[in-house]
Amino acid sequence: MESGRPQHRTEALELLSALRPPDPPAIRLGISGVPGVGKSTFIETFGMSLVEQGHRVAVLAVDPSSIRTGGSIMADKTRMARLSRHAHAFVRPSPSGGTLGGVARRTRESIELVEAAGYDIVLVETVGVGQSESSVSTMVDTFLLLCLAGAGDDIQGIKRGILEFADVLALTKADGDNVIRARSAAADLRAAVGVFVPHDSPWIPPIRLTSAQTGEGIEQVKQDVFRHREIMLQTGRFTARRREQRIEWLHATVEEVLIETFHRHPRVSKLLPEIEERVASGDLTPSLGARALLEAQRE
Amino acid sequence: MESGRPQHRTEALELLSALRPPDPPAIRLGISGVPGVGKSTFIETFGMSLVEQGHRVAVLAVDPSSIRTGGSIMADKTRMARLSRHAHAFVRPSPSGGTLGGVARRTRESIELVEAAGYDIVLVETVGVGQSESSVSTMVDTFLLLCLAGAGDDIQGIKRGILEFADVLALTKADGDNVIRARSAAADLRAAVGVFVPHDSPWIPPIRLTSAQTGEGIEQVKQDVFRHREIMLQTGRFTARRREQRIEWLHATVEEVLIETFHRHPRVSKLLPEIEERVASGDLTPSLGARALLEAQRE
Repeated sequence: MESGRPQHRTEALELLSALRPPDPPAIRLGISGVPGVGKSTFIETFGMSLVEQGHRVAVLAVDPSSIRTGGSIMADKTRMARLSRHAHAFVRPSPSGGTLGGVARRTRESIELVEAAGYDIVLVETVGVGQSESSVSTMVDTFLLLCLAGAGDDIQGIKRGILEFADVLALTKADGDNVIRARSAAADLRAAVGVFVPHDSPWIPPIRLTSAQTGEGIEQVKQDVFRHREIMLQTGRFTARRREQRIEWLHATVEEVLIETFHRHPRVSKLLPEIEERVASGDLTPSLGARALLEAQRE
Repeated sequence: MESGRPQHRTEALELLSALRPPDPPAIRLGISGVPGVGKSTFIETFGMSLVEQGHRVAVLAVDPSSIRTGGSIMADKTRMARLSRHAHAFVRPSPSGGTLGGVARRTRESIELVEAAGYDIVLVETVGVGQSESSVSTMVDTFLLLCLAGAGDDIQGIKRGILEFADVLALTKADGDNVIRARSAAADLRAAVGVFVPHDSPWIPPIRLTSAQTGEGIEQVKQDVFRHREIMLQTGRFTARRREQRIEWLHATVEEVLIETFHRHPRVSKLLPEIEERVASGDLTPSLGARALLEAQRE
């Protein structure tokens, strides 16, 4: 499914169209948090708790750092040692290479694949750097943001523009000396969320203190996720959103292929560095630069 | 410049490449606020104050509502009656028709045009609905968000994802009975901004109380904008950001044209509604739908 070879791609598309989506639909949960907030540990504890209650859990990843390097800051399977060995869990690192769009496309397809294989909860994790969250938010029903109270008043894990995607927020490592800081951070987060979530909204994102060490809050976050799903179903948002997402995927895939094809064109890729430099320096207007590139593709 | 006719387009590109950017560069200020926050009144007062101090002010608009209808919720020039009549001001409604990308592209080009014509401050206003802000933020140096303290604890003007773009925030209509509510809203906003702006950031977005009626805070916001520019210049961000923006425009223009060309293709536009419906209902996978559309273009 992740292969870029044309023959594999054709087979993957045939497989995808032969899959039957599960009924009831699986839960798709996005989990975001920057390195250092304890994301792997949280997912391991959270995932173990789900499999122990009879769920089958798949963990997929969208990691923009895998795009350039081919490696990935989230690639190490051993960081979820217990979960990845469990018979009812499947842990897959981010597909590497290509563009963010390409990585996103392959992850979306993998979601359908693991659901057809019987995983009823799919966790899609991402690294909390902004761009990938917006992409993951088009794949999932519910978005969980992990944050950590830092030294002083800082909250780690909140980059600008991430808060908007959060349906549930959890402060990690809320144990021992950290509890007081976590409480204060939770209050700050509540104020921030209050600013852009209307009071009459059917869903006010809850903010939970959690600890993978003591187990504190893990069950609560699980209940939040199930409750969010229930409210989405009741308000009709669930079905509407899944429909919207499929249309978004359609257009995102088309655009991704158009742009990739463009950039793979030999004359375009040869010309691009020079055009970029001339546009950056102001020597060439962006519009004329674009026209030159588009003409290079057509020639 | 706004015309879509090929001959006009060619002439517009020739004109653009003949323009000389002003030195020092003009100030490009994005202004966002939903209908009802008093945006037009603010811009009129703000703009009048600038022209009276000797500046030449252009007001351009990016209004996604102009895309579908051809009309625009911001089209009415009379809403800035004094400013639009002033000899040193130029007020232009949003280009209508096309896509958000097309509207954005024409606005970017208009920015360069009015700057070459001697306007040293360009205000780019948008309606505060999220998508257009992200587009406007790639055009401007500084982003001003207008909000209004509502009844109760609500703050009007903040849609999810908008706060992240704000370099300066202003509460409008902070006069009379409204002052107390505006103060309380400012405190909420301060808490929210504090959550995602690091304490050691070279720029902490200020939050000002303003009134177009009494003139309160208008001068302060102006100073904030000039100060933000100074700090951007000092830290080297100004030059770096303008470079980045030009490269972003280059790619945005290319992508816009690729996608527009695709959608204008007769077989694609004929096939699209059926494919969208089949994908939305789950009858066809997004990947196969995309493949069918891409093959329709190639045939």
